[in-house]
Amino acid sequence: MRLSRYFLPVLKETPAEAQIVSHRLMLRTGMIKQASAGIYSWLPMGYKVLKRVEQIVHEEQQRAGHIPLLMPTLQSTELWEESGRINAYGPELLRLRDRHDRPMLYGPTNEEMITDIFRSYVRSYKDLPLTLYHIQWKFRDEVRPRFGVMRGREFLMKDGYTFDLTKEDALHAYNRHLVSYLRSYERMGLQAIPMRADSGPIGGDDTHEFLVLAETGESEVFYDSEITDLKFGDRDIDYDSHDQCRAVLEEFTSRYARTDETHDAALFDEVPEHRRRVARGIEVGQIFYFGTKYSEPMGATVQTADGGKVPVHMGSHGIGVSRLLGAIIEANHDDKGIIWPEGVTPFHVGIVNLRQGDADCDAACDALHDSFTALGLDPLYDDTTERAGAKFATMDLIGLPWRITVGPRGLKNGVVELTSRRTGESEEMPPEQAVARIAEIYQGL
Amino acid sequence: MRLSRYFLPVLKETPAEAQIVSHRLMLRTGMIKQASAGIYSWLPMGYKVLKRVEQIVHEEQQRAGHIPLLMPTLQSTELWEESGRINAYGPELLRLRDRHDRPMLYGPTNEEMITDIFRSYVRSYKDLPLTLYHIQWKFRDEVRPRFGVMRGREFLMKDGYTFDLTKEDALHAYNRHLVSYLRSYERMGLQAIPMRADSGPIGGDDTHEFLVLAETGESEVFYDSEITDLKFGDRDIDYDSHDQCRAVLEEFTSRYARTDETHDAALFDEVPEHRRRVARGIEVGQIFYFGTKYSEPMGATVQTADGGKVPVHMGSHGIGVSRLLGAIIEANHDDKGIIWPEGVTPFHVGIVNLRQGDADCDAACDALHDSFTALGLDPLYDDTTERAGAKFATMDLIGLPWRITVGPRGLKNGVVELTSRRTGESEEMPPEQAVARIAEIYQGL
Repeated sequence: MRLSRYFLPVLKETPAEAQIVSHRLMLRTGMIKQASAGIYSWLPMGYKVLKRVEQIVHEEQQRAGHIPLLMPTLQSTELWEESGRINAYGPELLRLRDRHDRPMLYGPTNEEMITDIFRSYVRSYKDLPLTLYHIQWKFRDEVRPRFGVMRGREFLMKDGYTFDLTKEDALHAYNRHLVSYLRSYERMGLQAIPMRADSGPIGGDDTHEFLVLAETGESEVFYDSEITDLKFGDRDIDYDSHDQCRAVLEEFTSRYARTDETHDAALFDEVPEHRRRVARGIEVGQIFYFGTKYSEPMGATVQTADGGKVPVHMGSHGIGVSRLLGAIIEANHDDKGIIWPEGVTPFHVGIVNLRQGDADCDAACDALHDSFTALGLDPLYDDTTERAGAKFATMDLIGLPWRITVGPRGLKNGVVELTSRRTGESEEMPPEQAVARIAEIYQGL
Repeated sequence: MRLSRYFLPVLKETPAEAQIVSHRLMLRTGMIKQASAGIYSWLPMGYKVLKRVEQIVHEEQQRAGHIPLLMPTLQSTELWEESGRINAYGPELLRLRDRHDRPMLYGPTNEEMITDIFRSYVRSYKDLPLTLYHIQWKFRDEVRPRFGVMRGREFLMKDGYTFDLTKEDALHAYNRHLVSYLRSYERMGLQAIPMRADSGPIGGDDTHEFLVLAETGESEVFYDSEITDLKFGDRDIDYDSHDQCRAVLEEFTSRYARTDETHDAALFDEVPEHRRRVARGIEVGQIFYFGTKYSEPMGATVQTADGGKVPVHMGSHGIGVSRLLGAIIEANHDDKGIIWPEGVTPFHVGIVNLRQGDADCDAACDALHDSFTALGLDPLYDDTTERAGAKFATMDLIGLPWRITVGPRGLKNGVVELTSRRTGESEEMPPEQAVARIAEIYQGL
């Protein structure tokens, strides 16, 4: 993409209304624009990152054998009367009436609707296990939306629902989700720690939240410092194996890690003092096992092998897709701006032309742009006539992990400069070598 | 994908409530489930096709230089007061109030919001031309939703907005959209005819609708039969060239083609009688040029080269993404079920194992499944223990364009059977050759 043909409305001023760094940077880099309180338009660069995060979530969910579908944003209230949640849910539930005065709601989550889909079609234990998920816009009418996309009202969430014959199978589905979530977050350049959590209005017995450590996090968290040494890495997990998934759960949840909602001071004191940490965290996902809470009242049953009929065991598992962008920036920035992890960067590499209009520089930049595009990579070529300092400042602000600088002096020696946004280190090399280096970095990402 | 691990709830019975064939087939094949009147859940196979259609629209929009972003579903009514549309729009506009009693609406279209984005950031004629688009869920509170996804209430639409300095540039943007739409529809296996249209509540001077001919279409259409001979094909168009885009517009709109809303009997009579056609059509897109209708009241201006300030010329251009699935099925089916065009098929090829449990058959099917997956193709392998007739009926019903049948007799001779869903013709060949043939068919699609 050539910047001159793109829409990247970078702001010179730091917006006064933004209290936290991710919100400030998303506004300054022209990633989002507030449409109304807690509701945002995703401008082109913000939309690109949102799509990359969404894509990672899709890939990891499908790798785990989960099946995508899409439920609508608006729901009739009828199913919520069956489950009883219509009365349990407070004013965060956005209720409305259509032209025929029928009561509806903007879904904050989809347990009822997916249970209705399940009971409409599935009859036999032979069709289990089943995990269906979607990535869809949700609405929660927060009384005080704040922190940009971190606590918005209209937000994008992955919510997956598991249907199993037994509690044991349902707990495997729970563990499988935990594994897939660890993989997903690491691909986004995040460490998200599973912490024992409170079940809240969805209800449930077993539940973990995933928290990214950040000073601006809304939750106070208490944990054993050993937990931050754990990496999922590129382990090859068989998602059908109960043992393998359980082993990952045990490895990642055996140490003390809780939010203030479930914190137990006595248990925490058992952690050796030098490993006790109190910090703040951003919640980026949650997994629940809630048994037959919805299947029983809503009649989601299956026939068993011996001819009986039992309600299915269910769980629901969420990833906050749009809020992840805030969390990623909170965990990856410096004074100059964002530092995108390679897994989610909106453009793979920036190209800065130090002398726009110089035939050699223009030709070299065009060639780089075309080489990357031919490799399926997405370069952002600053082909404007801004001065070099301004071009560098914009590239640092928007935080592409790699930058190639093309100038007349280097070209005379047959080299361009490759710079890492994270370390600031630069290296001169022939253009072809820079292309090869970048291609290698993104290989398999 | 193995059918035993998928969720494909095919119905035995034809649903009584569906009046038209696409609605019936989408319900029978388990593509959609009605959630409430005019609101659907997209079950896994329906979701897959929806994504393929969406992907074609994205690719063709970006090929034309248009930039994706994403605006929210809910809007504050303030901007609609500025444009005056809050009063002009009837009860199809879904209005609601949030917990603070602030009036909001579920966007049926986004002219106001995109104009607000534009005026917030763009100051100079140098930033033009600019085309921004999104693919987002919309809501129109139809008084009688019907025909499944063809006239639903919550529906997915691509809406793109063009900003230009002059009327001439804006008309080029209009023509560019016409070209990109012709390409898009053809990639989906559809012939969509541009017809002079009425501008309706969006307002505008120049506007064409794109109609797919189908008996069940809602609009009566009148056209010169020569128009159906036109093909866009794989022409290489320079989207920046005013002349090239205008030439396509002229080629595709010079013959008489109108809906009943704009039909002119006297003009139609000038078409030679043997070429006059009266038929029905499904509207799958519309392009509008509406000048300064929104930019003037909302103050979306730019500075000109001579220091003046002028409101920008705008257009808005829509493709009905979710309703396209209905249109594609209306135009591509037979008595046995759907016949997907290769460009949008949910799975590229079906694999039918005639003797599940037979070691040779199972191994051959596994190998085919893995070969296709390794090539980046998406097979659906019916690995259930259903009898052959039922497997064939399901494959015909869901309409994958190609089927490979694997049986013990063929395997003894080293062959499998490759069958075209459209022609019904079968051919025996070694499995590797079948894979190569399928790979060739999908090359470049």
